[in-house]
Amino acid sequence: MSAIGALLRPRSVAIIGASADASKMTGRPVGYLQKYGFTGDIWPVNPRAETIAGLRCYPDIAALPGAPDAAIVLLGPERAEAAVRDLAARGCQAAIVLASGYGEANEEGARRQQALKDAAGTMRLLGPNTIGLVNLTDGMMLSATGALEVGDLPAGRISVVSQSGGILGSLLSRAADRGIGFAKLVSTGNEADLDSSDMIEHLVEEEATDVIAVYMEGLRRPDVFQRAARRAAELGKPIVVYKVGRSDSGARAATSHTGALAGADRVYDALFRQCGVIRAESFTDLLDIPAALVTGRRMRGNRVAILTSTGGAGTLLADNCGLADIDVPPPDAATTGRLATLLNEDPAAIGRNPVDVTLAGLRPDLFRGAIDALLEGDAYDAVVVVIGSSALATPDIVAGAIVECQARSEKPVLAYVSPHAPHLVRLLNAQGIPAFATPESCATVLKALQPRNLPPAAAMTPPDTSILAPFPRGNLNEAESKALFARFGVPVTREQTASDAAAAAAAARDMGGEVVLKILSRAIAHKSDLGGVRVGLTAEQIPDACAAMLQSLRAAGAPAPEGFLVQERIRGGVEMILGFHRDPQLGPVILLGSGGVAAELFEDTALRLLPITRTDAEAMVEELKAARLLRGFRGAPPADIPALVDTVLAFAAMAGAAGERLLEAEINPLFVLPAGQGAYAVDGLAVLR
Amino acid sequence: MSAIGALLRPRSVAIIGASADASKMTGRPVGYLQKYGFTGDIWPVNPRAETIAGLRCYPDIAALPGAPDAAIVLLGPERAEAAVRDLAARGCQAAIVLASGYGEANEEGARRQQALKDAAGTMRLLGPNTIGLVNLTDGMMLSATGALEVGDLPAGRISVVSQSGGILGSLLSRAADRGIGFAKLVSTGNEADLDSSDMIEHLVEEEATDVIAVYMEGLRRPDVFQRAARRAAELGKPIVVYKVGRSDSGARAATSHTGALAGADRVYDALFRQCGVIRAESFTDLLDIPAALVTGRRMRGNRVAILTSTGGAGTLLADNCGLADIDVPPPDAATTGRLATLLNEDPAAIGRNPVDVTLAGLRPDLFRGAIDALLEGDAYDAVVVVIGSSALATPDIVAGAIVECQARSEKPVLAYVSPHAPHLVRLLNAQGIPAFATPESCATVLKALQPRNLPPAAAMTPPDTSILAPFPRGNLNEAESKALFARFGVPVTREQTASDAAAAAAAARDMGGEVVLKILSRAIAHKSDLGGVRVGLTAEQIPDACAAMLQSLRAAGAPAPEGFLVQERIRGGVEMILGFHRDPQLGPVILLGSGGVAAELFEDTALRLLPITRTDAEAMVEELKAARLLRGFRGAPPADIPALVDTVLAFAAMAGAAGERLLEAEINPLFVLPAGQGAYAVDGLAVLR
Repeated sequence: MSAIGALLRPRSVAIIGASADASKMTGRPVGYLQKYGFTGDIWPVNPRAETIAGLRCYPDIAALPGAPDAAIVLLGPERAEAAVRDLAARGCQAAIVLASGYGEANEEGARRQQALKDAAGTMRLLGPNTIGLVNLTDGMMLSATGALEVGDLPAGRISVVSQSGGILGSLLSRAADRGIGFAKLVSTGNEADLDSSDMIEHLVEEEATDVIAVYMEGLRRPDVFQRAARRAAELGKPIVVYKVGRSDSGARAATSHTGALAGADRVYDALFRQCGVIRAESFTDLLDIPAALVTGRRMRGNRVAILTSTGGAGTLLADNCGLADIDVPPPDAATTGRLATLLNEDPAAIGRNPVDVTLAGLRPDLFRGAIDALLEGDAYDAVVVVIGSSALATPDIVAGAIVECQARSEKPVLAYVSPHAPHLVRLLNAQGIPAFATPESCATVLKALQPRNLPPAAAMTPPDTSILAPFPRGNLNEAESKALFARFGVPVTREQTASDAAAAAAAARDMGGEVVLKILSRAIAHKSDLGGVRVGLTAEQIPDACAAMLQSLRAAGAPAPEGFLVQERIRGGVEMILGFHRDPQLGPVILLGSGGVAAELFEDTALRLLPITRTDAEAMVEELKAARLLRGFRGAPPADIPALVDTVLAFAAMAGAAGERLLEAEINPLFVLPAGQGAYAVDGLAVLR
Repeated sequence: MSAIGALLRPRSVAIIGASADASKMTGRPVGYLQKYGFTGDIWPVNPRAETIAGLRCYPDIAALPGAPDAAIVLLGPERAEAAVRDLAARGCQAAIVLASGYGEANEEGARRQQALKDAAGTMRLLGPNTIGLVNLTDGMMLSATGALEVGDLPAGRISVVSQSGGILGSLLSRAADRGIGFAKLVSTGNEADLDSSDMIEHLVEEEATDVIAVYMEGLRRPDVFQRAARRAAELGKPIVVYKVGRSDSGARAATSHTGALAGADRVYDALFRQCGVIRAESFTDLLDIPAALVTGRRMRGNRVAILTSTGGAGTLLADNCGLADIDVPPPDAATTGRLATLLNEDPAAIGRNPVDVTLAGLRPDLFRGAIDALLEGDAYDAVVVVIGSSALATPDIVAGAIVECQARSEKPVLAYVSPHAPHLVRLLNAQGIPAFATPESCATVLKALQPRNLPPAAAMTPPDTSILAPFPRGNLNEAESKALFARFGVPVTREQTASDAAAAAAAARDMGGEVVLKILSRAIAHKSDLGGVRVGLTAEQIPDACAAMLQSLRAAGAPAPEGFLVQERIRGGVEMILGFHRDPQLGPVILLGSGGVAAELFEDTALRLLPITRTDAEAMVEELKAARLLRGFRGAPPADIPALVDTVLAFAAMAGAAGERLLEAEINPLFVLPAGQGAYAVDGLAVLR
């Protein structure tokens, strides 16, 4: 049994600092273990008690009758370290430290936390600053949280990992109210040792867990998380993450709350996409989406039927589905005919969606017949039944009919409960029908039930330190940068460096026609701002232009350039930006965006963590609003998207190979010409450390 | 007393088709009137009963002892018309027809609805297809809805107008659960006569109503709505609207539900902005926002303090506030000092927001002290108290402390309840502390509590039919269109029409330098697509260019143009689009957008209904993402925003004056030059009917 396994399903539990007073926080853990039916050994440790709740109490850890599988340390931070050391010495597999006052508090606390970790040695540690864990599958609670006082917590196949204990408690009580059951819930707190990625990795392999819901403030080990998420996707176990830190205020609060390291939220978004994780956008979604996924049912397409006995709520739901890009098409001819016969109505009146069965709603046989008709044909991929106030008086009949119809189909069947009726929501969820009290939740859940393919895993390009060896720290100039990019297959403009004006003129003559002239300087990142770019010059105009550029640099007090760059002029095509940077927490990131001011002004960018595959690169293009432009907008010719995708991959390979010294890189602009004509890096910059 | 007043507070009510069987739908209205304490006369009408619920029952309407103030007609559609006619004849002021099977059902129903309206004559009619109205202020229920079975509906100062009866019922039960009280609730159903705008207009003036919440599928009379909304803003009574039809599916469902007329949702958005109406984005917001506004408290700025005894929930809330652009700044020095003294903590640890008072949360005096400290200084404009599970056991103490502190301040105080605790939410709301169960609701509500200025009312330009008299139906050519725009002060490019190539060359010589040459054609809206635009020509190049254009038109099978247009070439500046169209339901609309493909690709447009004021035009500019570009992006010079605003106003004045014959108009592109250099219409089109 692994240490995490021992924590989740211990055969013996030591409770260090247990109190005989059941009303105290320290009195709870023994009580909870007994209340929820733990059948293993419970070993309270307290030098001032003989027995606790009928159990023999031990004066110290050394006196325990054996090495406990798991332990809960209920002592304050000043005494927890010694207890952890004693537990490790006694051969305990894993201990939970509940106390706060560690890394989340101040620097003194951070030192104390390190000491705690050191004291644990090879024993695994959950916490500190955690509410512990709750195993509802097996009725084993290693927690002192008041949330367990509630009782009557339904068991289910959703597990929860939360970096916040309070949020875990909140989810526990909210789910219980809705009849949503959990398997395991773990609060990882300060993550001195075991972190949320460890827990997720364990739960993914656990038989009793089908869906994992995660409350995240930040990831300490994105690589472990990513590996666990990919494994979960392979096993068909969805992971749903609600992550805070989407705003500056939230990121600041998260940092001061658990000391989690910051990373850009948009990069987390990219990480989730890349490893098939579903992101919950609202806190409510973190329960709603798992509650629907745990049925195991999925939509095969995008079409939903709304069956309602109350027109307004049906309209409300149809509107929200439409906003979420879920189709709400009218029934096909066969389904319409079947409904018309069943309900004895004019097909013209019944061929609508929402399907309004105001009268049938009161007759269970017609209600069942209508649900069956919508589920059985090929017209829909899911059915949402709207429950109005008429159902409140007879909840069992309505729920029974929906449960019965669902059993005859493999499609998802959801319920939207229009009036305030928590008993009905609870009843339906408990019987396997995901039921929701807001139209937004229904739409969000339908979105999450749609087919989703895990992008294939990518392999990291092995770094080759020789590539950047010739260059010093700081910026490379345009020619150096583009030569670096070109080495990996990034197509760049035809160009030639020139040490002086005469060489530049000669280069322009070689190239022929109108050319672009630029200064070449590692010191100047924004050449245009200093008059260092001229477009459409002939060879004859070059000497004067060079002189003017040098003059302009001198006037601005800029250092003398390394020389000039003469390049072909590229016209037409769609302008893009392709960039690379390092996220402080999550690592190397590729960015593709609309060109010019659009990337920033209209926030039209797509991100991925390295490494990426062709599928990732294609998905990046599709994510952009500029994708429409690339496909040929308003009669313009379609652009060379395959060449763009190749360029993204080549650039990513370059960034991977360049390794840790490459801090930033950018191609701006990248011109994507009409189909078949390629894409070209027109300007470029690389920054080394 | 007005007819609507008679409906809401009748002294006598006739109930046509009342049943003596209280379990039947038709038995409910008499029961509800009695249950909620109606003290006026109740006159049941039913030829087959002598008494109903202890009241004398009348065989027909003619036999009533007087003209009732109001009547509820419980008969089916086949008998309702006669009853309505009899009620009108008897002098009843207003009748409610509950039956469905009218305009919402089919064409036969629409005819029946018209007959019902005709039968009412001057008597006002609510419905058909309505659940009637609920007056909780005075305990007068004119409804048969099962939602009133609930009982224990708290009275308050929020009134509700809903086009759907089912939604009204849903709001009633959801609000009751949360301790949110209502004044009046009216379901307007098919709106054969009285519509939602009538009801809103009445409620705005009603003493018992402070906030109006509206569920809207579509507006029949936008002018009345706008007038009522402006009046409400003057009186400081917010109107909060949740409108469906934001998606195609929703718009289709709404149309088939109540037959409400369609209008573009974005135009509704513009209408709401223009008359100071708050739009609820989610269905939950429709209760949440009014529940906070009804306290009468408003934020003076954008800064919120979050006081929490549970770190995770505080973080969650801070993150959601940040996403909604609410500031969550750390406390200022004075407040930090006060908190540090109070809580006996290191100022360094306490100078954060969320303010974490884990220990103080358990001591009411410290908890109160902390709330006071945050409310009293100048650091914050509102306080949200996060309530964790520790408060569940002693809800009265927590609620009492918050209520007490709120009373000492004029600032908004909200509560976020982290665990599932409906009793605590109810308790707080009932005591005047808006309390919410989701972090998104708190953030939305804070947004709605911020200062909001009603834009000044604009006067419509009187139409002058002579303006368009010279033109036929269809498109005007560019020169005609721009001449029309210029008449109202829209600055256009210097340009000259030419009947042939020679005249065009002469015009180019007059203009001097490089010019733009265009074909002039009413028949061709997209000149560039047919090679009908050439930029940067000299006078010498004109004859060949004209010949090429004619050739190109012939090749495309296009009709011969009216001639050519020679215009100055405008360079630089920011490209915009300025347009006008008529919304089928809401009327004339002005659109300002980013130029080029951005308006469509990045959906960067701002809309307003005519007429508009300078404030509106300025707000349109500010709404655009392109506003950053206009203000001078990445070191570019700021553009001439005042000239842009002038141009929008001139274009709007043109559209107003042109009147009904003007179907569409567009300036594309409109070049906005650097500050002080103006804005110029470079191309334009007007379409007449």
